Amino acid sequence: MAALSKIVTTCYRVPLPVVLTDSTHGEMTHFELILVRIEDNEGFQGVGYTYTVGSGGEAVRVLVEHYLGPLLLGQDASLIEKLWERMWWGLHYGGRGGTVCLAISAVDIALWDLASRRVSMPLWKFLGGFDPSVPCYAGGIDLQFTEEQLLKQADGFLEQEFRAIKMKIGRKHLSEDVKRVQAMRKHLGRDFPLMADANMGWSVDQAIRACRALEEFELVWIEEPCIPDDVAGHARIVQEGGQPIAAGENLHSLYEFQQLINAGGVTFPEPDVSNCGGVTVFMKIAHLAEAFNLPVTSHGVHDLTVHLLAALPNRSYLEIHGFGLDRYIREPVKLIDGKAIAPDRPGHGVDFVLESLSRL
Amino acid sequence: MAALSKIVTTCYRVPLPVVLTDSTHGEMTHFELILVRIEDNEGFQGVGYTYTVGSGGEAVRVLVEHYLGPLLLGQDASLIEKLWERMWWGLHYGGRGGTVCLAISAVDIALWDLASRRVSMPLWKFLGGFDPSVPCYAGGIDLQFTEEQLLKQADGFLEQEFRAIKMKIGRKHLSEDVKRVQAMRKHLGRDFPLMADANMGWSVDQAIRACRALEEFELVWIEEPCIPDDVAGHARIVQEGGQPIAAGENLHSLYEFQQLINAGGVTFPEPDVSNCGGVTVFMKIAHLAEAFNLPVTSHGVHDLTVHLLAALPNRSYLEIHGFGLDRYIREPVKLIDGKAIAPDRPGHGVDFVLESLSRL
Repeated sequence: MAALSKIVTTCYRVPLPVVLTDSTHGEMTHFELILVRIEDNEGFQGVGYTYTVGSGGEAVRVLVEHYLGPLLLGQDASLIEKLWERMWWGLHYGGRGGTVCLAISAVDIALWDLASRRVSMPLWKFLGGFDPSVPCYAGGIDLQFTEEQLLKQADGFLEQEFRAIKMKIGRKHLSEDVKRVQAMRKHLGRDFPLMADANMGWSVDQAIRACRALEEFELVWIEEPCIPDDVAGHARIVQEGGQPIAAGENLHSLYEFQQLINAGGVTFPEPDVSNCGGVTVFMKIAHLAEAFNLPVTSHGVHDLTVHLLAALPNRSYLEIHGFGLDRYIREPVKLIDGKAIAPDRPGHGVDFVLESLSRL
Repeated sequence: MAALSKIVTTCYRVPLPVVLTDSTHGEMTHFELILVRIEDNEGFQGVGYTYTVGSGGEAVRVLVEHYLGPLLLGQDASLIEKLWERMWWGLHYGGRGGTVCLAISAVDIALWDLASRRVSMPLWKFLGGFDPSVPCYAGGIDLQFTEEQLLKQADGFLEQEFRAIKMKIGRKHLSEDVKRVQAMRKHLGRDFPLMADANMGWSVDQAIRACRALEEFELVWIEEPCIPDDVAGHARIVQEGGQPIAAGENLHSLYEFQQLINAGGVTFPEPDVSNCGGVTVFMKIAHLAEAFNLPVTSHGVHDLTVHLLAALPNRSYLEIHGFGLDRYIREPVKLIDGKAIAPDRPGHGVDFVLESLSRL
């Protein structure tokens, strides 16, 4: 048995190169990155991580350090499902969501990294292996951009070899959203894959109205139309709005996805591996989606998530998230002809440039 | 405007007088108490608190200290709904559940305490006022007791003026549960209000079978038959089991209660004011229950919760929780003829004996 012998957790404040704005979170000046490094008694290592949009990260660190750590040290690192249950139930009271799921996610990611590194396999093959070339899109955080800035940003994405783009919607007036989507559609051409993200900015009825108003632009999907808690509302939006809906970055368990999917409230389930419960839960959500004949997309930490979508036949686009974590990763994910390539290094192969981060 | 000028948060480790056991949490040796003391710039004070069954408390403290505090200091303490929204959205990413809801609850309780103390009103009247004498029950944590210990404990409760008792169920074999409930029913008499709590120990089908097997004992309710995430399962248990079901101590938002209630999955909604989002959310859950013609019961922190049930026409039994926090409260809630009496002191009137706690 290879027992877990070391768990080291650090929370970093990651300043954003530009202040980000969306319809819900307002101005974001920095993110938090919580890094979990584990080691087993044979010297094998694993790295896990999660992040926040600026709040709560220190609590994630405390949960891993004070509470999950003691539950895990000395346990067999290869029994990931067993350790996952141990974490879930160890923090169940006051858990089963929120910060606890970020903490579990970070540890779970480290466990999968370690397990695949032990056998020198890239994570995407360790998880089943489908196709390392994963369609991806550039996610602009551009709600407050002028139309000119918006199109210029799109040109930049195209130069970077992106072949799909997501823009923000949810401006004060629907007419503004329509005008901006129209401008982007005209600029990119009818067949270019374009998504739009409302970041929970609408009521259910506003969302239905917006879906109908945007129908002619043939968006790949409209994302997070309303608060994640309103399952019945999502079902109405899908059925009455008539547009494909992506949602899930703010759902924190397999059960929440089951409820939304089963209610017919989502077209593109969109888990974030760093907040849904880790690789263990992400893969189950993706398989659940497959059982419901739905494609799965993703949110956040794309250097890691590219492995998961590379292992899934029902994968849709990988989000290439725009918060600039790349600056602190030794070999960021590579794009070839609009596709992100899952690397062949052992594990997830995400190696943080810690010296640079520590200085923050 | 009376601005919030001070927020002090402390996490205490509260040793249990006896090790507690239930069907899910295993052995519990200590609880954690997180105390939030606030003050406005006119010198008025409020006290809020939440607890855990042993894990996660330090993260609650960090959330209040590092993240909620800065969002609240300098704000108008009287705009509780506004501050609640500020907290919810300030920690929404990685929040909307779990640890974040415990942190929000503790602060929200302190805000309601302060608001009612400003006008020298007891909280239960400040919240609307219904009847200060609240039916209550003694909650035994007795799954591993012998039958003899169980009956002896019941006698002790009767001596303490309790007129309703809850026992634990969820032993390895259903036959054991039936035997123990039968013994208690025989001991207490047919009309004595008796509840039973399974602490999520069953599958949905096991729960239905148990409900039917226990039917003849006319329990007031059967509590937490299965995991809180399974909404459809709860609905099956209510419908097919044929017994009143209490549930909710592990639900952390108004929305989760809405889903469970709307699905017909609960008879006695059972929020815990210290983990559902505070007084603000507890009252909304109770009103939602009233709209669905359901009585509301409670979980945890009874010295505070007695005020909430004293303000609600659809209140059912108050749980008198057995983890011994009373030892650290200056004037614990008083019982008269089986009813807990909401005190007439300003605010919630719960005054912790801090010297004693600090020594832990």
